[in-house]
Amino acid sequence: MKLLTFSHQSKQKIGVLHGDVVVDLETLGFKHNLEFPKSMLELIDLGESEIKRIEDTIKASSENVIAASSLPTSEVTILAPIPKPRKNIIGIGLNYTEHVAESARTLDTDNTLPQKPVIFSKPPTAVTATNTDIIHNENLTQQLDWEVELAVVIGKKAKYVSKENAMDYVFGYTVINDISARDCRRAGQWIVSKGQDTFAPLGPVIVTKDEIKDPHNLNLSLTLNGVEKQNSNTKFLLFRIPDLIEDLSTVFTLEPGDIIATGTPAGVGAGREPQEWMWNGDVVEATVEGIGTLTNRVKKLDREK
Amino acid sequence: MKLLTFSHQSKQKIGVLHGDVVVDLETLGFKHNLEFPKSMLELIDLGESEIKRIEDTIKASSENVIAASSLPTSEVTILAPIPKPRKNIIGIGLNYTEHVAESARTLDTDNTLPQKPVIFSKPPTAVTATNTDIIHNENLTQQLDWEVELAVVIGKKAKYVSKENAMDYVFGYTVINDISARDCRRAGQWIVSKGQDTFAPLGPVIVTKDEIKDPHNLNLSLTLNGVEKQNSNTKFLLFRIPDLIEDLSTVFTLEPGDIIATGTPAGVGAGREPQEWMWNGDVVEATVEGIGTLTNRVKKLDREK
Repeated sequence: MKLLTFSHQSKQKIGVLHGDVVVDLETLGFKHNLEFPKSMLELIDLGESEIKRIEDTIKASSENVIAASSLPTSEVTILAPIPKPRKNIIGIGLNYTEHVAESARTLDTDNTLPQKPVIFSKPPTAVTATNTDIIHNENLTQQLDWEVELAVVIGKKAKYVSKENAMDYVFGYTVINDISARDCRRAGQWIVSKGQDTFAPLGPVIVTKDEIKDPHNLNLSLTLNGVEKQNSNTKFLLFRIPDLIEDLSTVFTLEPGDIIATGTPAGVGAGREPQEWMWNGDVVEATVEGIGTLTNRVKKLDREK
Repeated sequence: MKLLTFSHQSKQKIGVLHGDVVVDLETLGFKHNLEFPKSMLELIDLGESEIKRIEDTIKASSENVIAASSLPTSEVTILAPIPKPRKNIIGIGLNYTEHVAESARTLDTDNTLPQKPVIFSKPPTAVTATNTDIIHNENLTQQLDWEVELAVVIGKKAKYVSKENAMDYVFGYTVINDISARDCRRAGQWIVSKGQDTFAPLGPVIVTKDEIKDPHNLNLSLTLNGVEKQNSNTKFLLFRIPDLIEDLSTVFTLEPGDIIATGTPAGVGAGREPQEWMWNGDVVEATVEGIGTLTNRVKKLDREK
């Protein structure tokens, strides 16, 4: 299923994307005298049995019931699938070979491949939806960059999980654009670079894992004002999803709803000659095959500070 | 007031520390037919008027009512004041001159003073209470270090706050021991070093800001097995609390309940000659004047992984 969080008539809801309509889970539940979770985190907490219950209910619904429970996507505002994560998004850096190379050429990172996943974080306040603005504070950065990534959503509490069992802990997948202000690193730390408000466009949907046959064979690409800047495939990930979950769950306790941004391939603005950055009015589109496209416009912050 | 989160008869509660008793806010409310918040985050969300209401209720209570609402501290288990923050703790690195110097000598950081606050994060899953174990995974680190710090708890949503107004956004203060595994940095990023489970002992209480006359004149010290390792004063902070709030609120949106660990003074294990690390059975005590002492024992992780 493609799950989404949306707002309709000022109310935040969750639903299932069905072609060009959204099945509103609250309305669907009402038609069947069932109660479904009201938020994506609540749904993730309930786990796979709840996914199955929703799927079964949709299957058992007549076309009329589906139609009466649905809203055209044009009538809803798609929000980030998890508008307010419970902790910082876990970012993985330097996880595609060519991106390691371009970063070493133009940023301050090493040109050898990392031996262990490189981890950083983006606060919940950085999360924004598709079709929203990326706010560019030109007093903070003159080097606003893009990074399309596959994001993994964790489904179950995970500690000391082996790579063999790791995929059991995945709830699903979404897209993240890991916006990065290259000139905002401080003592080498990336959180100011990557953690500013609106620097984590997320969505448009979460695809449950059963619908992604092989998460390590997904094209991912990014365009800026319609011009392709990144185009690769998750088969080139250095640390694959099971490796990441094994490593991360050794260091931290992973929890339902945690988001892991798995890293970006080559083609970022910092790695180009000459370097390219995003500016007011630019439109950036980040796509992962089988999930969807995040479209965001850069907007200059309109204040003195 | 000194506010704390505690558990009594397996129930998590909040209360006010009064000498060697804890006034249980649920019981106190019951005696007055009032309802008080059930968690520290709920209390922080309600803001200063709720603090005043609690204070007024305590003042208006007879000694008998206070006694009947109180539990001896020996009968409760003190939890971290915010057991589960809503996002990663915001850590500030290299914020005392002598610590910048010792870090430059022995770690990979610069020996010039930072021009802007150096920011990192510790996930909510790192938080632990006083009188709990710091879990030492010897497969991950052989360089387990201590860092006593004053922590600031944010009381109100803050964005683009000037240093002149910054203190209005402070709810109170607590103590953090910013446990750091010096050999766990990856591509220079500190989150694996500082973010492991139990690496953020926090508490024992939150002191509301009205009770700390000058947060920039507090002694802070740390002992390991009774031997003093750190002893300084917050007057030596390079970036003071208003500077930090101005800077952080320019980068991020700060929210009620956010925790800022303001940095540690000199005397960490990495900076000593020879270097010193913590091992199984060691007892570390971190104290900030006017707030209290965090006592934690290091425990070797007992598993193969």
